Amino acid sequence: MILTVTLNTALDLTYGVPELVPHASHRVSEMSERPGGKGLNVARVLSALGHRTVVTGFAGGATGAVLRELLADLSPQEPADPGAGSPDAPHVPEPGTAPATTAPAPVTDALVTVAGNTRRTIAVVDRATGDTTQLNEPGPLVTADEWAALLGRYEELLAGADAVALCGSLPPGIHVGAYAELVRSARTAGVPVLLDTSGEPLRRGIAARPDLIKPNADELAQLTGSREPMRATRDARRRGAHGVIASLGPDGMLAVTPDGIWQAAPPARVPGNPTGAGDSAVAGLLSGLVEGLSWPDRLRRAVALSTATVLSPTAGDFDRAAYEELLPRVGIEEHAPAAR
Amino acid sequence: MILTVTLNTALDLTYGVPELVPHASHRVSEMSERPGGKGLNVARVLSALGHRTVVTGFAGGATGAVLRELLADLSPQEPADPGAGSPDAPHVPEPGTAPATTAPAPVTDALVTVAGNTRRTIAVVDRATGDTTQLNEPGPLVTADEWAALLGRYEELLAGADAVALCGSLPPGIHVGAYAELVRSARTAGVPVLLDTSGEPLRRGIAARPDLIKPNADELAQLTGSREPMRATRDARRRGAHGVIASLGPDGMLAVTPDGIWQAAPPARVPGNPTGAGDSAVAGLLSGLVEGLSWPDRLRRAVALSTATVLSPTAGDFDRAAYEELLPRVGIEEHAPAAR
Repeated sequence: MILTVTLNTALDLTYGVPELVPHASHRVSEMSERPGGKGLNVARVLSALGHRTVVTGFAGGATGAVLRELLADLSPQEPADPGAGSPDAPHVPEPGTAPATTAPAPVTDALVTVAGNTRRTIAVVDRATGDTTQLNEPGPLVTADEWAALLGRYEELLAGADAVALCGSLPPGIHVGAYAELVRSARTAGVPVLLDTSGEPLRRGIAARPDLIKPNADELAQLTGSREPMRATRDARRRGAHGVIASLGPDGMLAVTPDGIWQAAPPARVPGNPTGAGDSAVAGLLSGLVEGLSWPDRLRRAVALSTATVLSPTAGDFDRAAYEELLPRVGIEEHAPAAR
Repeated sequence: MILTVTLNTALDLTYGVPELVPHASHRVSEMSERPGGKGLNVARVLSALGHRTVVTGFAGGATGAVLRELLADLSPQEPADPGAGSPDAPHVPEPGTAPATTAPAPVTDALVTVAGNTRRTIAVVDRATGDTTQLNEPGPLVTADEWAALLGRYEELLAGADAVALCGSLPPGIHVGAYAELVRSARTAGVPVLLDTSGEPLRRGIAARPDLIKPNADELAQLTGSREPMRATRDARRRGAHGVIASLGPDGMLAVTPDGIWQAAPPARVPGNPTGAGDSAVAGLLSGLVEGLSWPDRLRRAVALSTATVLSPTAGDFDRAAYEELLPRVGIEEHAPAAR
């Protein structure tokens, strides 16, 4: 199975309004609620790709309870499998058994309960333009005991994981080196680890030598001071990450890895909502790693999935038909060793 | 006791942001959650004035559960009173025993549980200017059985009520003549009834001859087509309301009643947030009615309470010191009979 860690999970609300006008009153015409936080989004895409996923991190309070209900609804009914566990004792399949099928696979809830309330995020979508205004609550204050409980749960889950993704922001109370700590545990356990965060937690996490990071252009610039993709990506790699996959929005991805340097680009620019495109890319990279795909094939999948996410009418979901159509059309260019 | 009916209760969230910028992402720096909907706001003020209040209406789902928890926290601990009932069997004191004290009195939860989710409202406050952007969910779809349960609960509660306030918008599924139905029941039971709503539910409700309505200038204009206060208020009264108390914002209130016509004005314009000022006025009018105050004294109280609500740093609460200081300074002018 693939493990995703979301320390600051969220109940994601989407509100449709005709137009957002500051200082006016708005009737919300449409609304939806779903479990969120980057690692939960990654898990949703992995599930759609047929990969069993276990999610951990923190959830608490009334909003946390709603998030967990929605997470349970999300998961397809378990197939007849006497080994499948309850949420508190996640099912851990043998390593290396990642399925090639695309039937949705279960997402197992292994979240650690906290006393505080899981945050809400609110995306207010102008129905006329599709533009989104985002309001993010800060998240619950996590105590030292709750962090210790998460570390224990994480160590147990690593034992059955083929790969792990560490995703998103830190809630209040969690120390800035938390991801570095989780990266080190994964490396000690021999589990490939991808880190997808930003700012100081990213800087500290990289120094712990994760297998992969997947920064976007802004995160790379904040980390390295450079907006030149090749320079910034190589600089990020020198800071400790074994592989750096820079997501360059509509320009695709630049991968600087121990095995070579590749640039992957979608066949054309597409209109749509980029929310969740980065999470879909993480799911593409991790599933490709677990399936033993080559770097070019992993990048094709990551780029096709993010592009199909931009194209989807629902923020954060991907359009499966578009994904399958795009996959063979992603352009891959290998940089000559001299360019490295 | 005083009964308030809130058919579309709400979990009111307030988000503080430095500045609301459409199409940008915002970290919410401060947030608060409280039970809302006009009738719950009225009950909070009545409680602060020392009046026992029972709230009914609908609540459901995870948001409804949070609302009810917060409502329970709001109410002071019951004094040693063997007659005080559980939330399902509200305590009903003898009619006419409204206390003169200002110690907070209990607010009893007699809400009817529905299957749908209680709506959230979100007030996004720009910290720099204090300006508020409001986002209101529509509310749960209420079924015919749930409406029948509310009618049954309402009839029971009317038997012990000294006065009733019918407040706010209708949730989906409730017919537009719902308030008219509730007004007729109150009149049949001999309980004075105040209706505070807008649009078609107000128009229909007035035709059922409530004792009082408390429209603001916009609601009056929508009802009568006139923005001239005296003309519009008298027109509203001719449509069926026994008394019309028009709230004119910083200009105070205009009361057209069977006993005379009065204009009441605060001593000065005050800066602040008008959210909840109308609900405080309703609490002032109803408590004054139950205590047998004269019209001028009821109006003094209503104007002083709304002004003290505008002055309060927390939206919807009133500043008690300001209230007590303002009360004797509200100007009352009686219109000569010829002007009627």
